[in-house]
Amino acid sequence: MDVQDLQRRLRAFAEARHWQPYLTPKNLAMALVVEAAELVEIFQWKTAEESLALDEPTREHLGEEIADVLMYLLQIADRSGVDVADAVERKLLKNAVKYPEPA
Amino acid sequence: MDVQDLQRRLRAFAEARHWQPYLTPKNLAMALVVEAAELVEIFQWKTAEESLALDEPTREHLGEEIADVLMYLLQIADRSGVDVADAVERKLLKNAVKYPEPA
Amino acid sequence: MDVQDLQRRLRAFAEARHWQPYLTPKNLAMALVVEAAELVEIFQWKTAEESLALDEPTREHLGEEIADVLMYLLQIADRSGVDVADAVERKLLKNAVKYPEPA
Amino acid sequence: MDVQDLQRRLRAFAEARHWQPYLTPKNLAMALVVEAAELVEIFQWKTAEESLALDEPTREHLGEEIADVLMYLLQIADRSGVDVADAVERKLLKNAVKYPEPA
Repeated sequence: MDVQDLQRRLRAFAEARHWQPYLTPKNLAMALVVEAAELVEIFQWKTAEESLALDEPTREHLGEEIADVLMYLLQIADRSGVDVADAVERKLLKNAVKYPEPA
Repeated sequence: MDVQDLQRRLRAFAEARHWQPYLTPKNLAMALVVEAAELVEIFQWKTAEESLALDEPTREHLGEEIADVLMYLLQIADRSGVDVADAVERKLLKNAVKYPEPA
Repeated sequence: MDVQDLQRRLRAFAEARHWQPYLTPKNLAMALVVEAAELVEIFQWKTAEESLALDEPTREHLGEEIADVLMYLLQIADRSGVDVADAVERKLLKNAVKYPEPA
Repeated sequence: MDVQDLQRRLRAFAEARHWQPYLTPKNLAMALVVEAAELVEIFQWKTAEESLALDEPTREHLGEEIADVLMYLLQIADRSGVDVADAVERKLLKNAVKYPEPA
């Protein structure tokens, strides 16, 4: 999966449907948290153990929600001029400093 | 950015710090929505126009939140056996059927 | 609307259905954010102006989501021993100090 | 705690600080989900059992987040013309029909 290629496809999809005026970072952030909450809903009444042993229909449902979150996230980055790969590398470095490996 | 490679790095990072018992899909879903809401917070009092014209420090802050959301999302997929690339392709297909291109 | 009376009714409703084992503060917090996001969903593609001029069916839908958020919130407080009225008064005082009235 | 009285106090507080232009239902919905997620954050790495046995500083922190969620929720209702008590009664009735008491 190539992130920039996926961003191009999402942009073309939105443009063909004249959705661009709606796809402000503000609105996309709202859509993102809505989809993230739909993912949370899958697990809300499950125990920790149950959340580790999903049946196949639930795993498929989870896959859909993961795709929805990712697609809004990449559109936010695209419209805001954020380089996702670069942002991830910076964050990994920051985390490595913040949480040093135990001896 | 290779998704599976990133998932491997996140897994190794968590294992080295003995975090695996905490990283159930249920807990990761909670962490995901917390990070998604931190991204929402950037835009909550901004107008649509302001959300399209971020200054550099805000864009950097946004990059960090995007990285956080993505990293939890990929860990949820990893621990649940969801193939992210495959889930995205299915969803794109589903969206193309649901929202046909206007003539 | 009396908060403590409502908390008692929600508790009795849950007990009669043997839901108490599911209603941990952790699970209720997940349900709360899911309902808050359903409320966000109402406004995600609306402009600021449109959000101020809801039609009657949308206002009714909003009323349902407000009730859902409130009912989970009061159950979290009830199960955690938080006095809601007291928490609100403390917060109002804190806000008055943090944001002094302009001269 | 009287809901309408609290709504009046929140309205006066916002007006005295000239915040009204920012307090659209759309923006308030974003602020609501941000506060709901801050409440989720308290519980994200806790077990179900730990979430039932908070220590005093955590309970106080939870109280603050509960107040924040409630105050944004009541402002959304106020600005949208939703009667909270009425919305709750309708929802309780709906739930009683949807989930009949087991025999």
